[in-house]
Amino acid sequence: MRAFYIGRFQPYHLGHQEVLEKIARECEEIIVGVGSAQLSHTFSDPFTAGERISMIMRSLADINVLFYVIPIEDIRRNAIWAAHVLTMTPPFDVVYTNNPYVVRLFNEAGFDVRSSPLYQREKYSGSEIRRRMLNDEQWEQLVPHVVADIISQIDGVNRLKEVSRKDRHQFDLANKHQ
Amino acid sequence: MRAFYIGRFQPYHLGHQEVLEKIARECEEIIVGVGSAQLSHTFSDPFTAGERISMIMRSLADINVLFYVIPIEDIRRNAIWAAHVLTMTPPFDVVYTNNPYVVRLFNEAGFDVRSSPLYQREKYSGSEIRRRMLNDEQWEQLVPHVVADIISQIDGVNRLKEVSRKDRHQFDLANKHQ
Amino acid sequence: MRAFYIGRFQPYHLGHQEVLEKIARECEEIIVGVGSAQLSHTFSDPFTAGERISMIMRSLADINVLFYVIPIEDIRRNAIWAAHVLTMTPPFDVVYTNNPYVVRLFNEAGFDVRSSPLYQREKYSGSEIRRRMLNDEQWEQLVPHVVADIISQIDGVNRLKEVSRKDRHQFDLANKHQ
Amino acid sequence: MRAFYIGRFQPYHLGHQEVLEKIARECEEIIVGVGSAQLSHTFSDPFTAGERISMIMRSLADINVLFYVIPIEDIRRNAIWAAHVLTMTPPFDVVYTNNPYVVRLFNEAGFDVRSSPLYQREKYSGSEIRRRMLNDEQWEQLVPHVVADIISQIDGVNRLKEVSRKDRHQFDLANKHQ
Amino acid sequence: MRAFYIGRFQPYHLGHQEVLEKIARECEEIIVGVGSAQLSHTFSDPFTAGERISMIMRSLADINVLFYVIPIEDIRRNAIWAAHVLTMTPPFDVVYTNNPYVVRLFNEAGFDVRSSPLYQREKYSGSEIRRRMLNDEQWEQLVPHVVADIISQIDGVNRLKEVSRKDRHQFDLANKHQ
Amino acid sequence: MRAFYIGRFQPYHLGHQEVLEKIARECEEIIVGVGSAQLSHTFSDPFTAGERISMIMRSLADINVLFYVIPIEDIRRNAIWAAHVLTMTPPFDVVYTNNPYVVRLFNEAGFDVRSSPLYQREKYSGSEIRRRMLNDEQWEQLVPHVVADIISQIDGVNRLKEVSRKDRHQFDLANKHQ
Repeated sequence: MRAFYIGRFQPYHLGHQEVLEKIARECEEIIVGVGSAQLSHTFSDPFTAGERISMIMRSLADINVLFYVIPIEDIRRNAIWAAHVLTMTPPFDVVYTNNPYVVRLFNEAGFDVRSSPLYQREKYSGSEIRRRMLNDEQWEQLVPHVVADIISQIDGVNRLKEVSRKDRHQFDLANKHQ
Repeated sequence: MRAFYIGRFQPYHLGHQEVLEKIARECEEIIVGVGSAQLSHTFSDPFTAGERISMIMRSLADINVLFYVIPIEDIRRNAIWAAHVLTMTPPFDVVYTNNPYVVRLFNEAGFDVRSSPLYQREKYSGSEIRRRMLNDEQWEQLVPHVVADIISQIDGVNRLKEVSRKDRHQFDLANKHQ
Repeated sequence: MRAFYIGRFQPYHLGHQEVLEKIARECEEIIVGVGSAQLSHTFSDPFTAGERISMIMRSLADINVLFYVIPIEDIRRNAIWAAHVLTMTPPFDVVYTNNPYVVRLFNEAGFDVRSSPLYQREKYSGSEIRRRMLNDEQWEQLVPHVVADIISQIDGVNRLKEVSRKDRHQFDLANKHQ
Repeated sequence: MRAFYIGRFQPYHLGHQEVLEKIARECEEIIVGVGSAQLSHTFSDPFTAGERISMIMRSLADINVLFYVIPIEDIRRNAIWAAHVLTMTPPFDVVYTNNPYVVRLFNEAGFDVRSSPLYQREKYSGSEIRRRMLNDEQWEQLVPHVVADIISQIDGVNRLKEVSRKDRHQFDLANKHQ
Repeated sequence: MRAFYIGRFQPYHLGHQEVLEKIARECEEIIVGVGSAQLSHTFSDPFTAGERISMIMRSLADINVLFYVIPIEDIRRNAIWAAHVLTMTPPFDVVYTNNPYVVRLFNEAGFDVRSSPLYQREKYSGSEIRRRMLNDEQWEQLVPHVVADIISQIDGVNRLKEVSRKDRHQFDLANKHQ
Repeated sequence: MRAFYIGRFQPYHLGHQEVLEKIARECEEIIVGVGSAQLSHTFSDPFTAGERISMIMRSLADINVLFYVIPIEDIRRNAIWAAHVLTMTPPFDVVYTNNPYVVRLFNEAGFDVRSSPLYQREKYSGSEIRRRMLNDEQWEQLVPHVVADIISQIDGVNRLKEVSRKDRHQFDLANKHQ
């Protein structure tokens, strides 16, 4: 059985890892969709698709299942988003997600959608990790070691801080380039 | 005389119906532009262009005037929006709108813009109807019967609820697909 | 039963009319998709979507069936073209076409596709009509009277000639704006 | 030495002028990028790229340096924004900006980025000027005379007011066309 | 060392396989870019990105190197194509290609570009394989077994034939949807 | 009086220079639109917008008229192309062109279009210059000295040759990236 699992992975963290380890016990192959692939260099989406693919591939290296890690660009038309995903991925049998939005779009497209295995969401959350990065709090223990390494190599925390700075004297170009 | 009237019709309601009935007394032909045609499956824009066209065509069936119901996709360049509309519609003599924005863009394009006939806006409003749907309040009496039927057939209220759910534990993909 | 029929209608001619009259005997409602809606002002696609909608609506005025005439813009991704069409139109039961391309795309999307009723294709053809316009030959008898009138009103034959002129001394911008 | 300086210039004001006069003492040629060139007719971005180019060119007429004033459209992919700018401009040696966002994107692209010369930012600010226009306060003294003239000629203050009006009874199309 | 190799893989054939086996002897990790990812259902580009990813992943299953197989959509701006690729992939050290076009674009972006290992190009060629499919000649021996299986499962040869049919009586929509 | 003149300028040559010198005798200000601005690195369009702007600005340095040199990206909708140009340029009074296509589009938009002053088109032509570059024939005498210098600095002739090479053994990616 081949499963599809999607997230933005900004960044990839131990909650994602836990879910994929659980799905890996039920499926032979897993497609990991890297959503909003075209975005990067903003507070909500600091990392490029390529950087996120690196994080995921390294973190999954020891799980003995075939993974496809595929960037999915937004198409800004919800009604055909599921059809768009299907053209970019090998065919799959089941969608794992707890996002009611993704549930709805795949249900309308006729798919079997299952709840993702649960993890401690209060603890593991992309926005919480980004908030900690911004405030120089501890965040490294929330992501796989290899992810912390990659973020360090690309100077990711400084990037996040710089693209997030609100300086009311500036030209305010930031929100225009997104 | 041929008139142009534009709205997003999320959903089409009795206020729109009242306006079109009044314009129909003054014009032989009416073009109804279905704005933001590419959007659907969000709280502000739950219905597809096709679903909205169904609502409008069915509601207008008994008015004895020639209607053109035409989806208008956003082009994200205000300065050429009016020119864009003109390429998608038969030529028209007058624009009916109370939206100061649409007034401005058609005025700059050299058009005769008239105030839409008034209706009870406190009562009939797309956002109020969507709010009621979300909260399981009565909304059916604010739309033509055929519109309530279509929304029921497409399971529209549940769609609205699901795409609107804010679950802070989720991946927050929703706002990225718009 | 509601049918879907698509063409580019550059221009709408008596062959199209014949097909729609035949489909109208079998269906209560017909959606006419105006393909490549964003194109105009080229030799292959001289008329805007709005002009083509005018031609079709006027020509169908006397057929006693409910018609939806809907512009369909190209999305340049064949694999989701059928899904794109479905979001812009009311739901339909059957597709009428003889275009093997459209057959394939709707078949892969799970649709019942039927052969269009036949007409004299040697006689009625958009490219043949445009060729005659360019060479000042007779073409008016190949289209409904109302279509000839519309083309005359918009100075369509001169437009076709001007956008088709190949002057090798020119800046050759023409093929860049398509 | 050729410098690059970017802003949205909504509108061009005396703070911009001051910065460019200072850069002009250090560089032989200056490229002025007009950012978010595709936007206009909103409260944040009322003026078209063409109008902004007029404002800038007229204001710089007496500075004895070669200016290139070039519209830069957003591409909605931050990670390639700097590469996009480079294709639209002559090559440059240095970027002047105080926007941390622009700093980051050009730094990652390997550029020498310098702080813009400072000006009184509390006094000169596009958003402050637009706020004053909206409230019929004095704003003309914050922009070069030629800019005030251009805004008067294009009826710019009324445009700003009309596209900014929030009329809760309206169809709320405004925010969809951006 | 991490290498980048790009093709359209319409379909993936034994020539590609031979090249990747050779690169695998020199590099620890290989990124395979699936070019023109948004195209499918045409004679030149019959297969979706997802189908091509399946072909490649299955064919590479026994090579003991870490592969990233990543769809790359066209962006229609050659000057930033290399920058676009870089945002979608993990960082790489070397580009293998014999395509002078790709050589040029990566050279201008400052990359080390090497000639791909050679294979028998007269024998293995995507266009030759598609020609054979169209004419019911033998093609299966030119691709890995798993690729022939996938093409059979998706009814790929019939798809190719249908989207390639030139029927001059048709509406000629085909070339408009690309 | 302000004039508008458009070309692709691949490359800018002495014919263009002659035309602009003549227009400069009749007008105080001239807007030079650099068409198909997003294209580069193909045989028909080898140079980026930025490179073409450099060529033009340098060549016009001694003509005592105010020039605006503005990149114009294609929008792929002919019917709104003129409106698109108008948003990117200061307002103008007259269009100079001999391109029947541009004539038509500006005429339909209500503009006064005049024939460009003539020049020896057999001698000066972008496609002829590119042909000579490809075949190592003399071309430098057909362009202003500064243009030959710029093309030399950017290694333009080699770029043209490399992006034009037709090697049937290659992956044939080239025509996909345009």
